[in-house]
Amino acid sequence: MALVNEHFLKLPNNYLFADIAKKVNAFKVSHPNADVISLGIGDVTQPLCPAVAEAMHKAVDEMTTPEGFHGYGPEQGYMFLREAIVKNDFLPRGIHLDPSEIFVNDGAKSDTGNIQELVRWDNSIGVTDPIYPVYIDSNVMIGRAGVVENGKWSNVTYLPCTAENGFVPQIPDRRVDIIYLCYPNNPTGTVISKEELRKWVNYALKNDTLIFYDAAYEAYIQDPDIPHSIYEIKGAKKVAIEFHSYSKTAGFTGVRCGYTVVPKEVTASTLDGKRIALNELWNRRQCTKFNGTSYISQRAAEAIYTPEGKKQVKKTISYYMDNAKNMRDTLSSLGLDVFGGENAPYIWLKVPNGEDCWRFFEQMLYNAHVVCTPGVGFGPSGEGYIRLTAFGSRESCTEAMERLKKWI
Amino acid sequence: MALVNEHFLKLPNNYLFADIAKKVNAFKVSHPNADVISLGIGDVTQPLCPAVAEAMHKAVDEMTTPEGFHGYGPEQGYMFLREAIVKNDFLPRGIHLDPSEIFVNDGAKSDTGNIQELVRWDNSIGVTDPIYPVYIDSNVMIGRAGVVENGKWSNVTYLPCTAENGFVPQIPDRRVDIIYLCYPNNPTGTVISKEELRKWVNYALKNDTLIFYDAAYEAYIQDPDIPHSIYEIKGAKKVAIEFHSYSKTAGFTGVRCGYTVVPKEVTASTLDGKRIALNELWNRRQCTKFNGTSYISQRAAEAIYTPEGKKQVKKTISYYMDNAKNMRDTLSSLGLDVFGGENAPYIWLKVPNGEDCWRFFEQMLYNAHVVCTPGVGFGPSGEGYIRLTAFGSRESCTEAMERLKKWI
Repeated sequence: MALVNEHFLKLPNNYLFADIAKKVNAFKVSHPNADVISLGIGDVTQPLCPAVAEAMHKAVDEMTTPEGFHGYGPEQGYMFLREAIVKNDFLPRGIHLDPSEIFVNDGAKSDTGNIQELVRWDNSIGVTDPIYPVYIDSNVMIGRAGVVENGKWSNVTYLPCTAENGFVPQIPDRRVDIIYLCYPNNPTGTVISKEELRKWVNYALKNDTLIFYDAAYEAYIQDPDIPHSIYEIKGAKKVAIEFHSYSKTAGFTGVRCGYTVVPKEVTASTLDGKRIALNELWNRRQCTKFNGTSYISQRAAEAIYTPEGKKQVKKTISYYMDNAKNMRDTLSSLGLDVFGGENAPYIWLKVPNGEDCWRFFEQMLYNAHVVCTPGVGFGPSGEGYIRLTAFGSRESCTEAMERLKKWI
Repeated sequence: MALVNEHFLKLPNNYLFADIAKKVNAFKVSHPNADVISLGIGDVTQPLCPAVAEAMHKAVDEMTTPEGFHGYGPEQGYMFLREAIVKNDFLPRGIHLDPSEIFVNDGAKSDTGNIQELVRWDNSIGVTDPIYPVYIDSNVMIGRAGVVENGKWSNVTYLPCTAENGFVPQIPDRRVDIIYLCYPNNPTGTVISKEELRKWVNYALKNDTLIFYDAAYEAYIQDPDIPHSIYEIKGAKKVAIEFHSYSKTAGFTGVRCGYTVVPKEVTASTLDGKRIALNELWNRRQCTKFNGTSYISQRAAEAIYTPEGKKQVKKTISYYMDNAKNMRDTLSSLGLDVFGGENAPYIWLKVPNGEDCWRFFEQMLYNAHVVCTPGVGFGPSGEGYIRLTAFGSRESCTEAMERLKKWI
């Protein structure tokens, strides 16, 4: 008799974004003429840049000739892209990586979800709170998160990040086997200083903790002192796996390409103390359950590293960051507590008057016809906040701010 | 202390195709002027058809305009493709599926590897032997396969498929929780009749067994009586999940697109006997760990279902099947026992004189400069056989056969 994996049944039935969509639809049905602006879901809106489009057309043309046809690529990604990554994303920051430490993927969601396969099911995990739900949900599915008690998973250590602690998570006072960090942070839009990040690396080195570091939004960092990669910190190569994505860097949410860095030095332990290199294990995982990323998407990613590609991608990021500035300025001028949006495409807003975030979500929807994301959807410490994204078009973003000015 | 998933360490260190590549390289170093022809790895060689290329160019152009830009798509795939699949791949065979039962993916390898996440780690599994290694390896990684004893995994039931039983696996005499079937078969190139497949569905219905049915090569079926889908068998929707791929159908090994069918009726049981719909669970798995397939790849797949696309794809399949016929005819004329190649792109050849398959592989490489795949790489019952693929160009395939004629 085939038995189901009952860990799946522990997951809450509701999806945050499905709940939001439902509420928005209900509003639209009762207000058919309302022009709803969504600053909710973190999806980009601006088109692919010309350098990327050109590379994709060229790749498609190649695929139509016997000489240029590309079948199965390496599961780890084509060397042309892995080398471009090493050379452009790491070398200029003084980080020396070998291309064999880069694994090209179809986006960071897959790898942040799959990486937990490499470790025992009973390792304990720690997350900054609020966070991207995939980190916890992927652990729930294998039984690693335990069970829900008072809205929290029993085998998960939550590290609150709120206005009260300046969104700086406190280093746990006990040993945690695996820590998920995401900087610039989704959903709060806050960043981590080198000094604070160094504390985490030292904690990991001391406690033999593995850090899964999600750097999906690093391209939005404006401040030169903020680290783009955890490997800017000495010792991090021994303890951290890092995730990157072209989704937000270059509008690849529909193109599907990113990469994961698994340094040769990073290890986990067997029960009897033998150190196992995770690079080799991840390679085996990918060779078994993944067949590489689309050749066309990889050529598209390569184009981001050309001089034109770099310029064009930067321009789009500036466009979104101008939105973020506009949003920050407007919301601050209304007397609201605004966080993020300076080195990240997300604005994290404290709900005024201590109201709960779902109630504020509904008020914003009904009074301003603007959709946000209730913070509690990202974890218990998200209660009392909402997330707004800077990924809209200039027009819709400006219009949304005008409406909020009138409403608040 | 982060503990490693020790199940990974049970996997054999050698990869079949890496071993082959190593041996081929050694040969090339000592024979620098030899023109080696590979009929080994199952990758296609013919370019993408014009209808597909046109659709991809169009999709890329769309992505460069604000109106046509596509960001995150549905994790389950775009409705335009799911509807085309239902209408073209199933309705004409009398199979009624809802688009919500179709999950578009980045190729069958991912989903055949990931599907086992839905069931308990201690379910028993059964496989036809020889088989595609992903089925077993993905189960090893979670601990479900047990340990290796005499070259076999302790929690795996092997169902030998050899010339002796006409490559018809015997229905197990005991209950097995999960059965993997692949027809047309990789590596043997043999097919299953409706009558035999009905026996499996009945076995599954009777024993509450789940069938994972890999139909990646169904487009190569020539005989009108051979089933293209397990859902042609009554009752199969209750017990089977089916995997499809455009890799071999339309040369998408570098484009990355396929789909999985999870009927609403197929269930697995909780420990206390509650039936859980796997459609819902797979949806949750995909929404958590997958972010949809490239928009461009999905438009490419849609183009396969246009009248021109269908014609063009069929032409390429005929091209490969002509190779297969040439190979079959040549090898048979040499007095060899040849299987497959009539409804599948694979030829399964019995090694003459009872030699072992690695030895024959080396002889073929050194005497004819032709690369094959030793059968034992696909499982214990593959010993004494080698696999040849029909995916080469006409010229290299014909040349390879000429060489074998001279050598054997």
